[in-house]
This record gives sequence, structure tokens and C-alpha cells, in this order.
Amino acid sequence: MRAAVLRNGRMVLRDDVPEPVPGPGQVLVGVKACGICGSDLHFAKHGNDMVKLSAEMTGLPGGDGAMRLDLSRDVYLGHEFSAEVLEAGPDTEAPAPGTIITSVPALLTSTGVEPIVYSNTTIGGYAERMLLSAPLLLTVPNGLDPRHAAFTEPMAVGLHAVNKSAISRGETALVLGCGPVGIAIIAALRHRGVEHIVAADFSLKRRELSQTMGAHETLDPAQGSPFEVATPAVVFEAVGMPGILNDVLRRAPAGARVVVAGVCMEPDTVVPFFGTAKEISVQFVFAYDFDEFGESLRAIAEGEIDVAPLITGEVDLAGVSAAFDDLAHPDQHCKVLVTP
Amino acid sequence: MRAAVLRNGRMVLRDDVPEPVPGPGQVLVGVKACGICGSDLHFAKHGNDMVKLSAEMTGLPGGDGAMRLDLSRDVYLGHEFSAEVLEAGPDTEAPAPGTIITSVPALLTSTGVEPIVYSNTTIGGYAERMLLSAPLLLTVPNGLDPRHAAFTEPMAVGLHAVNKSAISRGETALVLGCGPVGIAIIAALRHRGVEHIVAADFSLKRRELSQTMGAHETLDPAQGSPFEVATPAVVFEAVGMPGILNDVLRRAPAGARVVVAGVCMEPDTVVPFFGTAKEISVQFVFAYDFDEFGESLRAIAEGEIDVAPLITGEVDLAGVSAAFDDLAHPDQHCKVLVTP
Repeated sequence: MRAAVLRNGRMVLRDDVPEPVPGPGQVLVGVKACGICGSDLHFAKHGNDMVKLSAEMTGLPGGDGAMRLDLSRDVYLGHEFSAEVLEAGPDTEAPAPGTIITSVPALLTSTGVEPIVYSNTTIGGYAERMLLSAPLLLTVPNGLDPRHAAFTEPMAVGLHAVNKSAISRGETALVLGCGPVGIAIIAALRHRGVEHIVAADFSLKRRELSQTMGAHETLDPAQGSPFEVATPAVVFEAVGMPGILNDVLRRAPAGARVVVAGVCMEPDTVVPFFGTAKEISVQFVFAYDFDEFGESLRAIAEGEIDVAPLITGEVDLAGVSAAFDDLAHPDQHCKVLVTP
Repeated sequence: MRAAVLRNGRMVLRDDVPEPVPGPGQVLVGVKACGICGSDLHFAKHGNDMVKLSAEMTGLPGGDGAMRLDLSRDVYLGHEFSAEVLEAGPDTEAPAPGTIITSVPALLTSTGVEPIVYSNTTIGGYAERMLLSAPLLLTVPNGLDPRHAAFTEPMAVGLHAVNKSAISRGETALVLGCGPVGIAIIAALRHRGVEHIVAADFSLKRRELSQTMGAHETLDPAQGSPFEVATPAVVFEAVGMPGILNDVLRRAPAGARVVVAGVCMEPDTVVPFFGTAKEISVQFVFAYDFDEFGESLRAIAEGEIDVAPLITGEVDLAGVSAAFDDLAHPDQHCKVLVTP
């Protein structure tokens, strides 16, 4: 079957991927839609660094196993997917064939949990078909468009960041960066009823999109620091570039809670004194839990969060490579969906 | 009168300081004891940097006023004091002369609040006499030794750090650095009933003191990272040197809450990915509130926290300069008290 895989830093189309066969507890599904995530682009470019950093952190006594990944072999990607049930494995209870589902990106195997994110062996959403685990499947309700269901994962990331912030409705939120993560945060803030959401991005297109998704006010950092205008209780850092965190520590008001949702893989220099003098808290966030994933799907399916404006492109498997190139200029895009 | 002041980076004894005169709402007090704080030593050495960083942060639109301090003039220090009431200002209700009191280190004046920490004009605790504000005075109860009452302030710092951590009794605490701040944190953790307190310091003397003050287990980082032994829910960073924070982010277990109580004035480099991958939170803490200050005095006066073992030296005003030099080798000391 066909799948787009990462090979030597580029996405290439393969048509010789062995057909996956569901084991007990597993389900073969046909991918309906899979979003291209910023982390996929990042991995394509900096996969070596990520594997190295992961080893540095997890290779410590008491640490978990590092990423088991060989970058000299093909890597399967794609973790923001919706799919159609095709066939259950032996002795496996699963929704009827044809049911549209989604799942947290993880596959339960006899040897443990395999993340469906970057893998030499576990096929991801940039493929015609893939395996999922029956106990993890969520049926997509309300006849929701599978392309919209594919946003369950990225929107859960925003929901989780907002939950971790414990922001209340009356507190001002400042979201720095309106890429897909920032946008998901804005949507989750609006969904939670936060009454003053300020969004900052250099791109006019992204500022407009952030307004569509719920920001009450948008700022262009080229016109001056957002902190000259906003006095946020909670700052969501969704840029993930070196230098941002220190600027936030320096400019944020006393007592601010900073939620770091951007993924910065490079070393970053901060002046801790800024944090100390103002008693700032910095909560790094990552992913989501099962409940948040389910809540994300529910909110989309109930129409409480409209993800349609976020789709700025759609490609088939043959178009993945070009889409990765396009997304190098991310201000032209929010989310590109792969529809195999 | 006499006071030890900071002049060109060194403490010098002056005997020509004009006698302070209490205004309305103020009280003249005779200093009984004043602890030398690590921040005083730091200020003596790096005062220029502190004034510069403070300006960089607070000189921003919306920021508070920067430190108003002229380092070419004498600077009064000393913020961990107990004292005896001598004379109330005009129309001022105050405890009777002879009463032993302490106070948060701040003086209310007609133009605002003057911190009694570093000042060209407001006399601190390294002096025979100083002014305090009647509404801020706390009477030292139970006939508590004024030298012990002088620990109200530094122990409040530990109490505040522990309160901010929201640690529960069953969670493991790891305290990195057993200088006065680390020791205050250990005492506060023990006072809160935390059942597993691990303390790490290179100095044997400090490890022994941390045990006296409540640590259940002590570790020498020269023998291996504390994280090889402990799996803390909460890490208290009480070292304040560049490099520590990143090591904590790298080695701490997933979900750890890091409380930064050490004051690091230099830029510091971290790998944010470590924080992201493990969803670590970093709470910078500073000082305490009024309630915590009062609770600190109460706990000491009731004998719930015994500060006697912390006194490792005692000098008069003439000895302040030599004490500052001694404290450059801090592992020989915990707290040196100035008793004018």
C-alpha cells in the first residue's frame, strides 16, 4: 500500500509498504484525514537533535527509555488522524466496518505502548491504512466530517494547555504566536468562557484567523511589545523560539502564570532574576490526557468549536512532500490536511 | 550613632550617622539582633548588576519604578532584625518602650513604602537604632530571645516557598542547597509535616545542619546526582547558580514541580525541551506575605521551629566587615548575627 515516509529529511511517497495486519485487540482502519503538525516539520528538519536530546534526558538512571528510532531508516509520521474501521483483529470487539473513528495516537502491542508519532515500524496517518487499538477508539458522532474529526488531536493540545493554566473567565489571557497551537489555545480559551483573549502574531492572516477562532483583541508585535498593551494574568507561549521565554519573564506583570506550549528544541537563555523578582510561574505543557481528547472531539462534534476555518490546504499522499515545503512559510497556512 | 554601611563594595563602620527621628506613625527602635543574609553579600559584590537588571525590568512601560539607589553613596543594609521599642513618633500608638518587636522590612513614609533592604536613606538593621512603622510592628511573645526573633524574616522565606509549592505531606521534597534559604525551606517542610525530605549539599556541616532542622535524608552531590536516589514530587532549588535549573529540568521526574528559591542574578541557559517533555512547572518565589511573616514568628516563639542551631557566629557592628569576608566561605557558616 501507499504511505508518505520521512527518508533523509524529506517526505517521499512509497507504494510498497506491507499491508498492516491487525493482531488481537487491534483494528485495521483506512485513514480519512490526517493533519500535518508543526512537530512533523520540526522532526523532519531536526530529528537528530530530538533523538539526541531525548537520549540525554531519558538515558539517565531512573529515566524512561529514550526514543527508539533509527533515522537512517524510513520513519512513519502522522498523528492527527480520523479513519474508517475496516477490519478487527482476532477476538477483537470493535465498531462495525465503515464506522468513522479517531484515537489518541498510540498503539497497544504485546510488548507495550507504541506512540504513533515518529516510528520506524508503527505506521502513522500519512498512509492509506494503519493499525489502531480497539480500546482506544472513539466513534466520531453526529455525522461529523472526518476532516474535522482529524482536528481532535491538535485541539486537545490547546484544551490541555488551558486546563493546566487554571485560568478563570475574568482573567486576561495573552497568546503569543497564532500558529496551530496558539489557535487551538485561543479556541479552548473562548470555549471556556474567558472574557479577554489577546492574541499576538506578526502575520495579518494569522491575526485574522485568531479573531475568527475567538480572540477579542489582536496585536502585531512589529508595532510594539504586546505587554505594552495587555496586562495578562496568564501568558501562553506558543512560538517555541529561543529568546521568547526571557522576553516574557522580563515584561510579564508580577505574579503572571506562563504556560509554555511552544516546543523549543534549542538551548535558551533566561535571566532567572526577572522570574524571581515577580514570582512568575512557568508551566511547560505537552499533549493531553484521554478525557481532554474525548472532550475535544465532543466540542468539535457539537459545533462548540468550529474547526472549518483552520483548513488552509488539502493534499493526497503524493502531495505530502510539497506540503511540507509549503509549510516552511507557515504564515500562509494554518492546517494542511492529508486525505489519502 | 554607629552603623555598618556598604561603601565601594565593602562594609565599613561609621560613627557619624545622624540619629534617626521618628515621624508620625513611626517608632524609634534599638536593634537587638540582625542576621546577615546571603542577599546582602550578593549585593555587596554585584550591586551594580542588581540595579541594572532591576532597571531593565521595571523601566518598561507599565513596570514599577526601578531600585532608587546610588551606589556611589553609602548604602544601609540589614533586613532580618529584632529590636526594642525606644520612642514613638508624634501621635503614634506603639508598644511600650522596652518591648521587643520585629517587623517586615519596610518603612511607611508620607511618600510611600521604603523597603528596608538596600537604601541610601532608610537605615537598616546593621545600626544601633533605626525607624520602623508602628502598624507593622509584631510584638515578640513568650520572652523569646531577640536573637531568635531575628530569624522571623529568613524563616518566613522558607515558609513562603513551601506554601507556594502546595506540597502535601505524602510527597517527597528534594532541597538542593542547604544554605540559609535551603535550611529555612527544610524547617518549613518539617513544620508542615512532610514525611520525606531529602537535602543535598556538598558541605558535610550543612548536611548535618539540614538533618538537625528536619531533613530525613541527606545527599552529597559529589557522590552522584541526588536524582539518582530521590524521586521528588517537588524540587526546591536553593543554590541560585547558573546551570542548576537546567540540570533539574533534565533530571527531575515527569510532572515535577520546581520551586526556584535561589536568587540567580546571572543569565542562565536551559533546554526547554526537557521541561516540555516532562511537563515540569517552575515557580519562582521571593519573600513572603504578612501572614507568613507572622506565622514564622509564632512558630519560632512556640518552639515549633528551633532556630538556635542556625546561629554559627555573632559579631558587633565593628565586626560586620570581617563577617562579610568570612561568609565568602559559606560552608563554614549558616547564620551570623549582628548584635549591635
